[in-house]
Amino acid sequence: MQQVINYLREHRSQHLDELFQLVRIPSVSTLPEHAGDVKNCANFLAGHLEALGMKQVKTMPTGRHPVVYGEWLEAPDAPTILIYGHYDVQPPDPLDQWDSPPFEPEIRDGQIYARGVVDDKGLLFAYIKAIESFFDTNGTLPVNVKFLLEGEEEIGSENLHAFVQEHAELLNADAVILSDNSMFAPDVPAICCGTRGLIFLQIDLESAARDLHSGGFGGIAENPIQVLADILSALKDDNERVTIPGYYDDVVELTESERQYFSSLPLDEEALKTSSGLLEFVGEKGFPLLERRWTRPTLDVNGILGGFTGEGVKTIIPSKAMAKITLRLVPNQDPDKIAQAAVDYIRSLAPATVKCSIHAEVGGRAFLTPLDHPILTFIAKGIQQAYNREPVFSRTGGSIGALTTFADILHVPIAMIGLSNPDDNIHAPNEHLTETAFYTGCEVTAHVLNELKDWKPE
Amino acid sequence: MQQVINYLREHRSQHLDELFQLVRIPSVSTLPEHAGDVKNCANFLAGHLEALGMKQVKTMPTGRHPVVYGEWLEAPDAPTILIYGHYDVQPPDPLDQWDSPPFEPEIRDGQIYARGVVDDKGLLFAYIKAIESFFDTNGTLPVNVKFLLEGEEEIGSENLHAFVQEHAELLNADAVILSDNSMFAPDVPAICCGTRGLIFLQIDLESAARDLHSGGFGGIAENPIQVLADILSALKDDNERVTIPGYYDDVVELTESERQYFSSLPLDEEALKTSSGLLEFVGEKGFPLLERRWTRPTLDVNGILGGFTGEGVKTIIPSKAMAKITLRLVPNQDPDKIAQAAVDYIRSLAPATVKCSIHAEVGGRAFLTPLDHPILTFIAKGIQQAYNREPVFSRTGGSIGALTTFADILHVPIAMIGLSNPDDNIHAPNEHLTETAFYTGCEVTAHVLNELKDWKPE
Repeated sequence: MQQVINYLREHRSQHLDELFQLVRIPSVSTLPEHAGDVKNCANFLAGHLEALGMKQVKTMPTGRHPVVYGEWLEAPDAPTILIYGHYDVQPPDPLDQWDSPPFEPEIRDGQIYARGVVDDKGLLFAYIKAIESFFDTNGTLPVNVKFLLEGEEEIGSENLHAFVQEHAELLNADAVILSDNSMFAPDVPAICCGTRGLIFLQIDLESAARDLHSGGFGGIAENPIQVLADILSALKDDNERVTIPGYYDDVVELTESERQYFSSLPLDEEALKTSSGLLEFVGEKGFPLLERRWTRPTLDVNGILGGFTGEGVKTIIPSKAMAKITLRLVPNQDPDKIAQAAVDYIRSLAPATVKCSIHAEVGGRAFLTPLDHPILTFIAKGIQQAYNREPVFSRTGGSIGALTTFADILHVPIAMIGLSNPDDNIHAPNEHLTETAFYTGCEVTAHVLNELKDWKPE
Repeated sequence: MQQVINYLREHRSQHLDELFQLVRIPSVSTLPEHAGDVKNCANFLAGHLEALGMKQVKTMPTGRHPVVYGEWLEAPDAPTILIYGHYDVQPPDPLDQWDSPPFEPEIRDGQIYARGVVDDKGLLFAYIKAIESFFDTNGTLPVNVKFLLEGEEEIGSENLHAFVQEHAELLNADAVILSDNSMFAPDVPAICCGTRGLIFLQIDLESAARDLHSGGFGGIAENPIQVLADILSALKDDNERVTIPGYYDDVVELTESERQYFSSLPLDEEALKTSSGLLEFVGEKGFPLLERRWTRPTLDVNGILGGFTGEGVKTIIPSKAMAKITLRLVPNQDPDKIAQAAVDYIRSLAPATVKCSIHAEVGGRAFLTPLDHPILTFIAKGIQQAYNREPVFSRTGGSIGALTTFADILHVPIAMIGLSNPDDNIHAPNEHLTETAFYTGCEVTAHVLNELKDWKPE
């Protein structure tokens, strides 16, 4: 193993250059005008996997953006590990809040700044570089490996479920590992065992054929922004609980030992406040911060638009207003049932003076791996070798639809290894990854793959 | 007079061409990038007034956009009439809702389509063409005339008050007449005797240093859109009354005869609903439609913006949210007092988890001319000659800050003569004026000026 690690240390500069090439590709999956970039990014990764020695490498079409696949299956006595990552990224706006252009990577104070450098390009690239190191050093890998790199994670993995269903045999493995998450805290490594589910809603209201003069129609015309504000305001009560009927019915309460474990974790609330710039933490009454963040379902408005929003004054009553909302779900909540309840409830809140159209999209159920699964011991051992510190077992408040898919179709254990820092501005301007986290990430994944050769799947 | 009217009828095609030149100039006063166009428009009008025989014509600077002035004072025994109009226009957006480009006038089915063709370029141009006709036919005017054409009406006449104060002697007159309003209904001419006042508010909320991931921060981070929705929702009660403390304290209730006069007016509610495309009329409980529209104060959100509003999904908790609001005030409400009450109230509704900044701007008090003022008889007689029908005495729900200024500083009666149709899409896409209304408007203003020569100011 020391040779593998040495190789990684000797090639840092080259690996960084290659990562720069990867993040320069603006593979924004949600924007139709970037579809070509998403495709280019898939081709870049496929070429890379092929060059370093993976077999059967191909980009495979889905309903929208391609999947990159590659395998190496020449270790008959070792388990087969499916490595998942996503090469698509969030839109970069608001552009004016970036200190350097989002798709021109730049290092400042040891941080690599670029859209997608953390989420998830830099982290999936660490796995690829670990694989390269094994190939170049030993000519083989310690375990059998399959890569599945997705291009639709940031849009709710809309085609992944069907893709995995169709290719279940090809993707068959003993476990899935991935890194699309951060360490618990700087220098506190983590294995993340749970994610939240996701529902996306868009509400569109229309009250008139056109915008109306607020003088001539003020006092007689419905205002769809006012209606939308009333609806959004009604979606939460004074305790910050979501008012959708039945929203909390299926939520499983934590056990006393889970609550105690979470409360024992070394959370630095002040550091979190400073890094986010939040004035205060808020949220559902009666639950401590980590529980609100990981184990409680939420509702957030992601965007709102209506009427005149330029500089100056325009005295209109707008004819339209729109809001985008995400719901984060926890284990045992059924996304389809909740989405329907949300649509029904919002519709019931809209008066007859507006046309109300609601688009609902399910991004996936919440996911949870049991803490006593044997594979976690081997992964923890690999992590410990890289950091000289035991990882904590965490959850994330985010949502990775792919995990539910793997659990449901492949029936395998799944573990997410936190490689980045918690305050890396993912989904926000000035997304960044420390150089160190990238280099160490390559070593962590190499150690984990090496340890997994001794794991015996049941 | 018949010669004057004949001249107008013979020169319709030329006058229409000139109006087209005027509306082609995109004199959008609120957008800094159009400041040059506003200036060009002022120069165009000044050149025009000079060419037709007005004296002392000049563009006079203000804090932002110039005033166009011109006079003719060679009728010693006749009253002096100040003619007011505004040559600035509203922004044209949303552009995609226009059937022809807003600054390329086009006639379809007898309607001239262009931004500003009704509000107010076409109507002020009718006065100019009436003046031209008197000059070309008689070589004189029936009354002394001063023109004051403003470039800031659509941004609340921010410099007009100071301008009129500074030039009170130059602008001294016996009355102010203008047309910046419609007839009461198609074929029902009107003299408008009252306007509402106007306050503009902008609320900006900020909760964090940057947009945050709705997975990692959902359940712990304040959402400024949610806060804004809560604030906007709290600004009205279940009876659609504005909840700003003291908002209705100084409102003078209508007399029984005023209520009866308004209820006797031939209002076609169904036509208003059809032309606006509204599904239902709404508004303050307990007041009939015309009273809600003309005589009751209102609050309307003109625009709202926060977070991600593009196509697709972006799972963020935004750091900022913004709303623009107008309040329409009625006689006896003090705008400064109401603006302060609004700011204080909104601030009291904002929690400590957001930075709340509120910008308030007073556009002017409400204005009301007593119905028994003698000048109204002369104006009504002029109108009747053009339309063969007596005008009604109406109000408007809109706001013309200039009128309060004239009343306060010049101490003269003011009358607004409705020349356009009520459904002309002012402040909205596809603003339009009938060709007929423009041609008749020239004749109406000629008749009114001719009748006013017999009015003896006290």
